[in-house]
Amino acid sequence: MFQVKKKNGAARRGEFTCPHGTVQTPVFMNVGTQGAIKGALSAADLKNIGCQVELSNTYHLHVRPGDQLIHDLGGLHKFMTWDGPMLTDSGGFQVFSLASLRKIKEEGVHFASHVDGRKIFMGPEESMQIQSNLGSDIAMAFDECIENPAPYEYVKRSCERTYRWLVRCKNELDRLNGLPGTVNPGQVLFGINQGGTYDDLRVWHMKEIAKLDLAGYAIGGLAVGEPTEVMYHIIEMVEPWMPVDRPRYLMGVGTPSNIIEAVARGVDFFDCVMPARNARHAKLFTWSGSINLKNAKYERDEGPIDPHCDCPVCRRYSRAYLRHLFKAEEMLAMRLSVMHNLYFYNQLMQKIRDALDNDQFDAFRGEYSEKLAQKI
Amino acid sequence: MFQVKKKNGAARRGEFTCPHGTVQTPVFMNVGTQGAIKGALSAADLKNIGCQVELSNTYHLHVRPGDQLIHDLGGLHKFMTWDGPMLTDSGGFQVFSLASLRKIKEEGVHFASHVDGRKIFMGPEESMQIQSNLGSDIAMAFDECIENPAPYEYVKRSCERTYRWLVRCKNELDRLNGLPGTVNPGQVLFGINQGGTYDDLRVWHMKEIAKLDLAGYAIGGLAVGEPTEVMYHIIEMVEPWMPVDRPRYLMGVGTPSNIIEAVARGVDFFDCVMPARNARHAKLFTWSGSINLKNAKYERDEGPIDPHCDCPVCRRYSRAYLRHLFKAEEMLAMRLSVMHNLYFYNQLMQKIRDALDNDQFDAFRGEYSEKLAQKI
Repeated sequence: MFQVKKKNGAARRGEFTCPHGTVQTPVFMNVGTQGAIKGALSAADLKNIGCQVELSNTYHLHVRPGDQLIHDLGGLHKFMTWDGPMLTDSGGFQVFSLASLRKIKEEGVHFASHVDGRKIFMGPEESMQIQSNLGSDIAMAFDECIENPAPYEYVKRSCERTYRWLVRCKNELDRLNGLPGTVNPGQVLFGINQGGTYDDLRVWHMKEIAKLDLAGYAIGGLAVGEPTEVMYHIIEMVEPWMPVDRPRYLMGVGTPSNIIEAVARGVDFFDCVMPARNARHAKLFTWSGSINLKNAKYERDEGPIDPHCDCPVCRRYSRAYLRHLFKAEEMLAMRLSVMHNLYFYNQLMQKIRDALDNDQFDAFRGEYSEKLAQKI
Repeated sequence: MFQVKKKNGAARRGEFTCPHGTVQTPVFMNVGTQGAIKGALSAADLKNIGCQVELSNTYHLHVRPGDQLIHDLGGLHKFMTWDGPMLTDSGGFQVFSLASLRKIKEEGVHFASHVDGRKIFMGPEESMQIQSNLGSDIAMAFDECIENPAPYEYVKRSCERTYRWLVRCKNELDRLNGLPGTVNPGQVLFGINQGGTYDDLRVWHMKEIAKLDLAGYAIGGLAVGEPTEVMYHIIEMVEPWMPVDRPRYLMGVGTPSNIIEAVARGVDFFDCVMPARNARHAKLFTWSGSINLKNAKYERDEGPIDPHCDCPVCRRYSRAYLRHLFKAEEMLAMRLSVMHNLYFYNQLMQKIRDALDNDQFDAFRGEYSEKLAQKI
């Protein structure tokens, strides 16, 4: 299911096969929270910008339109017309960041919907049932995502419970995959490492979940308040205990530089809302650093966003036109900018894979890790 | 430049040639107010939904980003990457509907920008200069657009002044087309008939402007408050005095039924914001009447918006998915709905042209004029 084809130091070039296709790794997954990509991108657009894996959000789709409806209409792939690999998160992150009136118990979490205040209960079994109804290829374990920093004793109790929840997730998904009428019986489970910023808890937790022989392992609870160096340190602490023959997914990370640095530390899967969110604020990535198109200096700039980019936007539109669209508050500004930024991220991963294939990853990292952190 | 190929009663099947191509008429022009189509549609999307003529707004583009900037960057075609025929309105309608602190004088109109309150003066010469800077294929005359009903004496004085403004528009555009550095020296002028709801003023005005031998003639000041029957009556009053060898353009009209009925009365060009505006409110056109996708009955409807439509949206997406996008307030809802509705309008014109080519327009009108006015 996952095969490491090549290594450059700790960095891995791999292939992950799931029911809807084979994913070349390292990979950046493109976020379609509610079964649609922000900025009015369609499933067809995703193909055109080099997306390999679409990521949707369990919590949002459970609340609206409801996972049972999506199940009854043939699953999320059919509903949104995306026929490639798909990952769904567990809902945990949104329950802890969006929902209100939250009560965490051993059985799961009681909370109120952010849309209509309706009371909802979600535990490991419920999360698996929803993700099974959606029919993604990769289901994520239901966990508690804690903000950093948090007190040691709280983090310890939390990640012990998250471990117990993971065992329940595994049992429940096994059960669901065996039932008749399951949308995607080949759905697999990725576990999520937690433990806050405490090395010993992170390592203990990673060792325990590794024993469960899951299809993949994520590092969660990072990029939620801690300094970048702490994030890199935790990856380095945990990585030696992650099974070498399973993909590693760093959740919610990050800038192009963060991704290059995490690949260098052995990570294979990424996702982040940053490229779409930045795009909506006219902050666009280029191979020389990021630019803000609202800047007056682009008012009469006839060049593309990035002369070194061959995305559908850079091939056709000028910075001057895009800047006008932003100033005039035209929706098209968002769409074209999101397309460019997601293409940039997908292209970043392509370049990382090419570098790994050619044993040039160190040189690539040396050239781009700092440059892509700049603003020009 | 304009050739009537065939007639079915008063309805005309024609061809209009301008610097950026030949337009098959009757035609519906697709509105891109600020150099972009509402709903995040791109110039490339316009081609895919059968748009022949793009229409942009002089007033909006003068205010932002400025017509001088667009001129300096090579004109609006290049700026927005639309290489087909393009019409610009005169700014008159927006000056009278959007701007504030308005003072109408013989020389033109003093007003304040709706964006930043900046004082602007626009008269016939200024309108032509702006449209020349934009470089559209068809420039519209600068006129006063009066709400219906209005007092006879006011309408009389206004349409006499609009006639004098038209003469000045003609002279100014002739002058601009002869200058070096003009973006599109083949730009032509359409005059606009005014006269409110008064038959004698409408006919007097039409006779006068017909003498100016312009490239086309529009009927303006309709669909601004008067009953539909009054609108049809005025078209019937004015049409005998419109030059037979020039295209006729009914401005800002209308529903599919309005368009069929106006074609039956000899009109060739149309534009309207209705298909895009309705789309944004989930009101979608079908060949059996219009539907509101927010209606609960579409919650689990796996069919396309219209089983008889072959637009890019109907070929791919279900009503259930589109309804979800609307309920979840995803921008993609707007984009897909605007695409469908504009495609529907462009397809309506194609069907009208096919019917005219086959001497079947009466049958087409009989089948669709009432049906398309219904809600299902």
